[in-house]
Amino acid sequence: MLSGGVGGAKLVLGLEQALKPGQLSVIANTGDDFEHLGYTICPDIDTLLYTLSGEVNPATGWGRRDESWQFMAALEALGGPTWFRLGDRDLATHAYRTSLLQRGSSLSQVTDSLRQSMHISTPVLPMSDEPVHTTIHSDAGDLPFQDYFVRRQAEPVVREISYGNCSTAAPTEGALSALRSDALAGIIISPSNPWLSIAPILSLTELQSTILNTTAPVVAVSPIIGGRAVKGPTAKIMSELGIPVDATGIAAYYRDIIDGLVIDTQDAAHKAEIEKMGVKVTSTNTLMNDLADKVHLAEVVIRFCDQIATANYS
Amino acid sequence: MLSGGVGGAKLVLGLEQALKPGQLSVIANTGDDFEHLGYTICPDIDTLLYTLSGEVNPATGWGRRDESWQFMAALEALGGPTWFRLGDRDLATHAYRTSLLQRGSSLSQVTDSLRQSMHISTPVLPMSDEPVHTTIHSDAGDLPFQDYFVRRQAEPVVREISYGNCSTAAPTEGALSALRSDALAGIIISPSNPWLSIAPILSLTELQSTILNTTAPVVAVSPIIGGRAVKGPTAKIMSELGIPVDATGIAAYYRDIIDGLVIDTQDAAHKAEIEKMGVKVTSTNTLMNDLADKVHLAEVVIRFCDQIATANYS
Repeated sequence: MLSGGVGGAKLVLGLEQALKPGQLSVIANTGDDFEHLGYTICPDIDTLLYTLSGEVNPATGWGRRDESWQFMAALEALGGPTWFRLGDRDLATHAYRTSLLQRGSSLSQVTDSLRQSMHISTPVLPMSDEPVHTTIHSDAGDLPFQDYFVRRQAEPVVREISYGNCSTAAPTEGALSALRSDALAGIIISPSNPWLSIAPILSLTELQSTILNTTAPVVAVSPIIGGRAVKGPTAKIMSELGIPVDATGIAAYYRDIIDGLVIDTQDAAHKAEIEKMGVKVTSTNTLMNDLADKVHLAEVVIRFCDQIATANYS
Repeated sequence: MLSGGVGGAKLVLGLEQALKPGQLSVIANTGDDFEHLGYTICPDIDTLLYTLSGEVNPATGWGRRDESWQFMAALEALGGPTWFRLGDRDLATHAYRTSLLQRGSSLSQVTDSLRQSMHISTPVLPMSDEPVHTTIHSDAGDLPFQDYFVRRQAEPVVREISYGNCSTAAPTEGALSALRSDALAGIIISPSNPWLSIAPILSLTELQSTILNTTAPVVAVSPIIGGRAVKGPTAKIMSELGIPVDATGIAAYYRDIIDGLVIDTQDAAHKAEIEKMGVKVTSTNTLMNDLADKVHLAEVVIRFCDQIATANYS
């Protein structure tokens, strides 16, 4: 599974239930990563780790539950930067990660160490150990990702998006091994924001070519339901980029890389149009409110992969 | 005033009361400073800032009052280093300081910014903007200061102490200006640990020569009362270095640099022996339990300076 943050993490929870131990690996977007207050912060990796360890704040889908904000309050009193909110307990993750990186560990090694500390069995694999920073080219200028996303609350109009040194950055060995495994039964693209969360992963030349050349089915889950994004600025960005804000827009974006698209029942009317693009379609309830929803969607995705693999799709 | 942490900060509080605004500047030891979890930590500067702003933890004399420890608990759960305890609110000081240093500010500038944020009027001047790290040469090997002092709780036997690049590091302009001011009425050496807190300041070649050449009286306050240190390993270190653990040991150590020594009433019997070293002596209650004690000691020190300056000492 290729995953961004909140939406991806929800489906990972479902897949963990629907699959046997050892059957799932997650490749995480690191295009959102940034340096702040001296620490390397990896929002999507952390959302995955917190979600899989049951540590996530259930109210937001990111950050830690039972969080406190003493650090932030004291920093604000000193006149320090407060636009990126760091909870006291969340901060420990960034501090520990940064101290390990500074001692020479790779992001893969650090992430695996955090995963083990949090007693998570599913591998969480950074897409690259090298920095690949997403830049938003907007009507407010060229903005580093978090500057656009958090500081400016995704308000600037997006004209173009670029992904740092994506043409030269190497994918991690873990990510490539997972994608090249003989046991690979399918590649799932999570219902994360395609342009902000999935495109950075696909922008890595070697990773993209590996996915294009795989014989396993590649299936995406549409993040658009009834013309709206479940969360975040996906619909706003699609509109700004001149892309139809519906499942056909998602299908058109992914058509070269995917075999199938899971769309919401609400969007079933788009099925024929998407199939004309050469993309297979299945529809189901894709909104994940509770664990049952997540497991249900995971089961549909797995079955869809199997159907495509066995040419049993109709 | 030359100052280390807790003991020095107490006397600074007294001096603030006993002097008029603008009459006091504090030169702070930075030999204890170290890098930890990516942050530059300046324990003596912070103890001074927290004490002067009323922010200090009254139970310990260092750290912040109303502190919480969520960061530390989360770090411990991840397997991170916990030997140096960083409170959530204290951490904000280190984060903000480090972010300003990384953007090119000097330690003097950062300290002054923190001082202003905390509404402190007394200048707190780092001894140097360059790192001058204290190393403890001990029976457990050569230990960075905090490794000796906090991690090993000052247990190794001290054989020798060295002060980083003290022969080349420049004192700060602020410190030199204060010491060279035409208005200088006296230099006070706080009752901090002479070897751990004052010696690093005096180890700076230019700062030491400035003090040796000043015409203003130089007065130290003995940190030893009745053969014991009020706090910390001063007595233990004196014993390990073969120095008598009483006011004569303090006097002998400072004799080349001071004109006078303030000793405790309990130690008045040592007066004649110290005066034989060419050091003037006055005795008073030097234990600072409450603000009245601090102001009283400050007034004695100020009067002693004036007496020495006017040759009115008897």
